[in-house]
This record gives sequence, structure tokens and C-alpha cells, in this order.
Amino acid sequence: MPQRLNIADPDFESRFSALIEGKRDASTNVSDRVRGIIADVRERGDAALLELTKKFDHLDVDSAEALRIDAAEIKAAWTNTHETTKEALRTAHDRIRSHHERQRPRDDRYTDSLGVELGSRWTPVETVGLYVPGGTASYPSSVLMNAVPAKVAGVKRIVMVAPAKEGVLNPLVLAAAHLAGIDEIYRIGGAQAVAALAYGTKTIEPVVKIVGPGNAYVAEAKRQVFGRVGIDMIAGPSEILVIADGDNEPAWIAADLLSQAEHDTAAQSILITDDASFASRVETELEYQLQNLSRTAVARASWEDNGAVITVGSLINDAPVLADRIAAEHLEIAMEEPEAVSERISNAGAIFLGRYTPEVIGDYVGGSNHVLPTSRSARFSSGLSVLDFVKRTSILKLGPEQLRALAPAAMELARIESLDAHGRSVGIRVNLSGRESDNG
Amino acid sequence: MPQRLNIADPDFESRFSALIEGKRDASTNVSDRVRGIIADVRERGDAALLELTKKFDHLDVDSAEALRIDAAEIKAAWTNTHETTKEALRTAHDRIRSHHERQRPRDDRYTDSLGVELGSRWTPVETVGLYVPGGTASYPSSVLMNAVPAKVAGVKRIVMVAPAKEGVLNPLVLAAAHLAGIDEIYRIGGAQAVAALAYGTKTIEPVVKIVGPGNAYVAEAKRQVFGRVGIDMIAGPSEILVIADGDNEPAWIAADLLSQAEHDTAAQSILITDDASFASRVETELEYQLQNLSRTAVARASWEDNGAVITVGSLINDAPVLADRIAAEHLEIAMEEPEAVSERISNAGAIFLGRYTPEVIGDYVGGSNHVLPTSRSARFSSGLSVLDFVKRTSILKLGPEQLRALAPAAMELARIESLDAHGRSVGIRVNLSGRESDNG
Repeated sequence: MPQRLNIADPDFESRFSALIEGKRDASTNVSDRVRGIIADVRERGDAALLELTKKFDHLDVDSAEALRIDAAEIKAAWTNTHETTKEALRTAHDRIRSHHERQRPRDDRYTDSLGVELGSRWTPVETVGLYVPGGTASYPSSVLMNAVPAKVAGVKRIVMVAPAKEGVLNPLVLAAAHLAGIDEIYRIGGAQAVAALAYGTKTIEPVVKIVGPGNAYVAEAKRQVFGRVGIDMIAGPSEILVIADGDNEPAWIAADLLSQAEHDTAAQSILITDDASFASRVETELEYQLQNLSRTAVARASWEDNGAVITVGSLINDAPVLADRIAAEHLEIAMEEPEAVSERISNAGAIFLGRYTPEVIGDYVGGSNHVLPTSRSARFSSGLSVLDFVKRTSILKLGPEQLRALAPAAMELARIESLDAHGRSVGIRVNLSGRESDNG
Repeated sequence: MPQRLNIADPDFESRFSALIEGKRDASTNVSDRVRGIIADVRERGDAALLELTKKFDHLDVDSAEALRIDAAEIKAAWTNTHETTKEALRTAHDRIRSHHERQRPRDDRYTDSLGVELGSRWTPVETVGLYVPGGTASYPSSVLMNAVPAKVAGVKRIVMVAPAKEGVLNPLVLAAAHLAGIDEIYRIGGAQAVAALAYGTKTIEPVVKIVGPGNAYVAEAKRQVFGRVGIDMIAGPSEILVIADGDNEPAWIAADLLSQAEHDTAAQSILITDDASFASRVETELEYQLQNLSRTAVARASWEDNGAVITVGSLINDAPVLADRIAAEHLEIAMEEPEAVSERISNAGAIFLGRYTPEVIGDYVGGSNHVLPTSRSARFSSGLSVLDFVKRTSILKLGPEQLRALAPAAMELARIESLDAHGRSVGIRVNLSGRESDNG
């Protein structure tokens, strides 16, 4: 059974704290094994990559070149896709692109009242590696969610890697890659793929940043190569928080709670409502729907172990405070006037407003990104966006007059920080020596 | 002697690669000790904090409350500051604020052609911890560079921590904090301060994000608490790359190279020029200036161990390619027409244009931030800005019509990803079942 909490109960605060502090992520310690794999790929390059791919993915090829998927195979994956699926992928792709195009940051260049020129200039990250997991977590939609913002940012080279057990890759992942314009794809996975992307081999040129979800080995490998390359966030299990009044159809809300529960036994679905009898109806309906899912066992474990139903006195007053503490990846506000509640909440990866915006729309075709902060990190971070594929350079330009105007303050600060050469590099240009010190 | 490289030499590529791949950071392995300290503070809270502060900082107080600096002491630090210094701090503060105010991201809310409402809403991180190192690295300018963007972002609570050996804190750091509007300051440092900020104690409320520079213990502690809280980048040793033609005053360029060398023996100063005789004059002048610095030993070690002078055939053609590979924290372009070179470079934390923009202006009073990406991370990351203190929430709102329009594509994607509950949460609202599957 999921937990039931009532804000009026005397033990509410302690139980609610325990709920949000609880770690759902199984912390497998794979750091030493990953360190060994990365060192091996750094040292022996392609040879290590071939051996490790044979060992872990049972894919045995003669040369590293053979790990690359040729253009014809990528094209064929698209061509052989059913027209209905193509249409759905195109809808998703185009809507994601339109939305992300609005995220492109604008350069800023201006001259202040002293005549100092200042600026911020944005440029794309040169090359990006995109990790796509194998098995049941191999989602075409995730290929689009990661690749499209990179393309919109102007990234010149996007390299996709995906483990191919016995050489087999999900053709729909290839189809999505084709649609997104990715043409450099390797049949490699795990920590060895991350190492190859970060350090390069004779066959695979290194990249500057690595994004995309993966298992514990991939996540740890990304952590270890961070600094050498940039990485996106390390994603935890999925989460949904639904704030719903009693006027909702219980079956709809039950389906929404299950849509995240079916991802992972560690996923978390929470309902906040002001109507206890509605809560019971949702639970009953959820039990019924659970029986008819291809991932029943996963969804049931998630709901029973991590799910929660919280009853509050007032949705408008109580729910925002709790929602900000939960800082959910996905937040649905299923009410007639959802904006009034939404405006009071600042910690959430994405908010879905009203009775006709199930979170799933955001997973696929809403246009916004489905790579969102988990494990309460929405308190300090944001979903994937074009900003993750660009970086900003500050620009400063002074002439002799501006330098003369700012020199005394700069030299005074250098003096109090005892940085002589700092003071001198300003003073020497304007024939000044610093206050109370000899700056040469 | 610093290295001398010439792009025309046959071994240039291998030596240049070695130069940029070289790790300058001393990698002290302190991770186990830091893990112990964090666990201790989590478990025993204030008691551990008091013990560790006594042990490491020789500061012995009765209660955790006594670790907090009272308002009168902060105010007095400002009042007792020399008027010239106050004026310099005010100039820096106001210029940093003006520049960073332009960085505030704008919310976006729009309705697309289908009638779907989409949006991106930015909100401040609720609370931020600012670490200020002790000893010679205790810089008032860094207090402003970290605190002002947080204030501009709208962060409600900023908590400063700084180790106070025997209870003594740099009064100018307190003065800068006062100017920036920080009133919650604790005399604590090291991994124990980071732990207290991340997990909280009875006396210190936890924060959501921790920023600011620190030694190896602080950096490792930030790495370990990351995820629980957000952190800024982990800063490496300072770097400057100067691209200069032969028409510069050698003494000016020498001073600029030394301004970063004096920070740290691991700092790196590199000169790229197309004039070998100018390079020699810079080196001679630099030797001369080295004799007259309070940090001569540090600056000399940095220059001799990590410095480099690179001669190229053409500044406009060769320098940008090398500069993009170096991806320097600070890049000075000391030429008559610096823009022509600047436009060709995309990897740099900050660019300083022309002969009258020494990098030091950016350290103090230019207005842009001096917290910048080091160790080639300018290839994938940016300097500190208002964006580091806000996070974005995606907003999506559909009505029944919009959901009906998007349902087929969403349900098709759910189907190919075998996520039944995903398909159902859409289908149940529009009375549709998915193609070739029973979505209940």
C-alpha cells in the first residue's frame, strides 16, 4: 500500500520529511570497475573497446570501424518505419524544435556611460556525445529530446552511441536519429562508450560534452569523466506529483500516477488532494488499472513502496508549500483554476495545467523537454534545454580614457588583496603606482 | 624557463598537445577524510561543527550560536574600512550589479497554432551558501562576484561561511559582505562548513546551493554533497592566454602574464605572438618584474613550470585555432583590431579586447564576473552568472481540443515504447485506445 498522510495528523511533519528525504535510488557501487574500464579504453583505445563490447554486449567484430552503423542502415531504419509511427515522430520532432528555438540565448553587447564596452557572446559546444541505453529503456522519444536542442544550439557534430546486444539495435532509435539528423552512430555502450567519447580512440574522435540517460555504470562513468568533458545531469528515477481536487475523474488521475510508476520500481507517484473520498476512489481505480499493464509488476512495486496520498485542508494554501518541498520532476495541477496554485510554486521541473494536460503529453509531443531534474534537484536545476549546448564568453573593451577612470578602484582592490602584479598591469598603462605600496 | 613553441617546428603538434593536456592541479586524495567529516556533521550536527572548528581553526567557542558573526561586527567592519577602499568596493559592486542585471532571463509564455499554451518560467534558487576561503585566498572581490549575481537573481537567503583561524576573519571580507547585503555569516570553514550548509544543523538552516572557491577539502566536500544541493563549478588554477602583436609595450604584456602567475604555482600564463623578437623582450621584461613582487616565488614557479611562449606565422589565422584548443579562462587580445581575431574564437571564459583592457579590470571593476571556467572547461561551460541562481520550470496547458489533436501521436509513441499507462493516461481522456494494443 502507498503511504497515506494527512496534513492534520500530529506526526505529519516527521512522516512528510521522511518521505521527501528517502533515497529511492539503489546505490550500486561500481566506481572501481568503471575506473578500470575507463583506464583501459584510454590506454588501449580501439582494442579495448572491441574487447569490452565483445564481453558485455556479445558483439564480436573485426575492427572498430565495423562498430559504426553505416548510413544505409540508418536510412533504412527510417524507411522501414510504419507511416503512423513516422508521423508521430515527425509531430514530436517539429514541436520540440519549435519550442526549443525560443530558448536560443541572445548575445548582448553594449557601451556603458563611461564608454566601456561589455558583452556576453554565446557559442555552441563544438561536439556532443549522446548516450542511448539498450533494452527496455531504449526510447526513440529520448533521442529527439536530447538531439533536437543540440541541433537548435548549432552543435556541429553529434555522435550517438548505443549498446547493441548481439549486434541488434532498436530500429526505432535509429529512425529517430535519422529524423534528428544524426549520422555518426556507434554500436557501443556502458562505461567503455563513455570513455571512448571522452578520450577518443583511433576510430572515434572525442567529444566535448556527453548527455543522455544510462544505467549505474554509465552514470558513474559520466561522473568520472566530468571535467575532461561536460555532462548533463545524472538522472534519478521518475517522479510525478499530482495536485487534484475532488472534481476530477478518478480513473484519469489513477492513469497519470501509473504513467510514472510503470517506468521503474524506484519511481515515485504522489497525489495531493483536499478530498479524502476522492483519494480513495483514485486508489481503487488504480488497483483496477494495475491489473491490465504490460509492466504491472514494476508499476505495482513503485506504487506500493514509494507512492503516497496526501490529504490537505486547502489546495490553494497547503499544496504549494508541500509541492515546493517535494520539488517534483513532473507536477500536474488538475483543477479548474490551476494557475492560482501554479503561481505559488517555484520548485518543479515541469508543470502541467488543468484536467486535459496529462504529463505524458510532455513526454512526447508537448514540445517542452522530457529530460527534467529528479530527486528534488528542481530546487536548484532545470530541464535540458538549448542552454545546455551553448556557453557564454564575457567581452570587455576599454580605451585609455576608460582605463584611467577605472584604474584607481582596480588598483586599490589589488592592493588590499596583496596582488602586486595585478595592480601593476593596470598602473603601468596609466603611469600610476598604487596607494601605500610600490607597484613597480 | 617557460616552454617556447613555434608553430613551424616539426614537433609543434605533439608539444602543443602535451601543453594543453597537462594536468597542473595537484590531486591530493582527501576523499575519505572528507567523507568522514561530512558524516560526522550529519550525525552530530552542532557538536561536531564545534569540535571540528576547534581542531582545524583553533577557534574554541561554547555554542554554535557563537559561531555566527553578529550584525554589529559586520557593520563595524564596513564602517572601519578606509574611504578609498570603500569607494573602490562600491565601484566594483555597482558595476557588477549593472552588468548582471542584464543577465536576468525573461519568462516566456505563448500559445501555438493548435492552441496549446507553452511556457518557461524562471524562479530564484531559494537559499545559497557562499564559501569564502581563509588565508591569502580570502578576497573581498570574490565575495562581490558570488553574492551580487545571487542578489540580482532574487535569492532570498544568502549564508556566508569563512574559516577564522583563532577567530580572526579578514575584515575586508566582512566589509564586502556588508556592502552586498549579506547578514548571516558563520566563522566556519573546510568540509565541515560545506556539510553544515548542505545538511543543516540545529543552528544553521540548510541551503539549496553552495558556491565559492576553496581548497582541496572544500572542493571535495562540494563534490560529495552535490545532488543533495547544487554546486557551482569546481575551480582549477588560474589561466591567462595573451595574443599580442609586436606593437605592444613588452612591459605591459609581461605584467599581464604575471598577474595570473602570482595567484598560484599551478597557474598558467601563455603568450601567443607572431613576433619572436617581441617575445624575447617580453620574457626579459618579465624576469625584471619578477624581482619586485611580494609573491615572487609563486609567480616564478608558475611561469617557469607552466608558462609558454608560442610563436605563430599569422595571428589572424593561427592564433584562433590554438586559442580554441587552449580554451583559456582569460583571453587577452592585445592588437589594434582585436575583434577580427576574437570573432574567430569560441572557447574562452572571458575575452579582453585591445591594448587598454588588462585582464585585471575583469577581476575587479569591469562589471563582468571573475568566476570563470578553468582547465579547458570553457569548451562546455560558462562563467558564473545570474543563471546559476535561477532555475526554469516548463509550463504546458492543453484543453480538450488540443489533447484530441495531439493524442494520436502521443499514443503512438507510447505504444512503440511499450508504456501502456502512458498511452492510457491520454486515451482515457479522449475515449481512444491505442493502435494495435489494448490501452484499457
